[in-house]
Amino acid sequence: MGAASMTLSSKNYSSWSLRGWLLARFAGLEFREEMLSTDNADVRAEILLLAPSMLVPCLHHGSGPAEVRVWDTLAIGEYLHELFPEAGLLPTSRAARAHCRAICGEMHSGFSALRSALPMNLKARFPGFKVWSRAQADIDRIVQIWTECFDAYGGPWLFGEHRTMADAMYAPVVTRLQTYDVRLSDRRLIEYCQRVLAMPEMQAWIADAKLEPEDIDELEAEF
Amino acid sequence: MGAASMTLSSKNYSSWSLRGWLLARFAGLEFREEMLSTDNADVRAEILLLAPSMLVPCLHHGSGPAEVRVWDTLAIGEYLHELFPEAGLLPTSRAARAHCRAICGEMHSGFSALRSALPMNLKARFPGFKVWSRAQADIDRIVQIWTECFDAYGGPWLFGEHRTMADAMYAPVVTRLQTYDVRLSDRRLIEYCQRVLAMPEMQAWIADAKLEPEDIDELEAEF
Repeated sequence: MGAASMTLSSKNYSSWSLRGWLLARFAGLEFREEMLSTDNADVRAEILLLAPSMLVPCLHHGSGPAEVRVWDTLAIGEYLHELFPEAGLLPTSRAARAHCRAICGEMHSGFSALRSALPMNLKARFPGFKVWSRAQADIDRIVQIWTECFDAYGGPWLFGEHRTMADAMYAPVVTRLQTYDVRLSDRRLIEYCQRVLAMPEMQAWIADAKLEPEDIDELEAEF
Repeated sequence: MGAASMTLSSKNYSSWSLRGWLLARFAGLEFREEMLSTDNADVRAEILLLAPSMLVPCLHHGSGPAEVRVWDTLAIGEYLHELFPEAGLLPTSRAARAHCRAICGEMHSGFSALRSALPMNLKARFPGFKVWSRAQADIDRIVQIWTECFDAYGGPWLFGEHRTMADAMYAPVVTRLQTYDVRLSDRRLIEYCQRVLAMPEMQAWIADAKLEPEDIDELEAEF
């Protein structure tokens, strides 16, 4: 398979980095992490949603002229699914696979109000945070998506017994609900959020985020 | 395969509808078009980029309990690629496939300045249109993406001899460059744009767009 590495930016702030990293961990890929400095203007622009598009995370696989670079979370997920089909990043039934890709696509292109009003910030807690109406519409749609998954596949993960791409794509949302004190009413969804936060991979990521130097706290002020 | 239909909104304004429709045509799917009325508030919100996410286009395939609904352009592309692998919606080499998915992903989640400042509008022409700086950064990135494809695969399409998902995903950009009088300097890219606009599928779509009733022209004022 050749050596693999993944370029990431802030573990505290970059929800896209978290998604790509979780996909690689779910797939069982062995890879080295390359942390980009948040002092870099391009990296800051990405985290602040001011870049034309997201070039982080980027998976580098193999070396020399045969090196493959994949720099979009959905493309990384599909690439890993091709390499490690047994990892089950996508459901086995064609209809469920289409459903899984559809909700991953929704997360990938939509929910801009949620992104800008409730940016991922693993170190912080904002009890009683007031959610602005367009971000609330985003949350309502996510609750609907999750509910349809639990109704159709029965949990414990969005597509049933195994974690898929969708659980990685929606994991940053789970952290936002915690950070911004957003309460859900459906017991299944509350337990799903607890389950996502309790994943060993998630715990390891959050521990790293908490150790990140404070020199990027000024980012918060810009959000 | 069962009957198929695709839900679309405005042919003049909805770039996502155009992408999904082109993917289905490239794949060779036989399908019925279901046009949603732009009088509908949800449809208008989507076209105006005010909805949480994009639920149009939506591909309906089969019927009864076995009906598959796929409502995201990338998910539609992957679903069609599974059904019609011989159509070549994705390149045959794994590395080129990863590259293709990465640039499709970039188009899918990024370029928000381009979307809001230069919305698709096939009926209109704005000679001398002034492109705002963040939209210009988006255009510069798209030129870089296309240039890398022509350097790597030699044209005439983004991934070589055959049209792929990427040509469908970037087709609305080609129409925007024409509508807003954006000039490119690389001869290969200028010819690529002409080639995309000359596709019989594109010509048919544009002809339909021009026949759309004028009662949605008020949309323009809201952009």
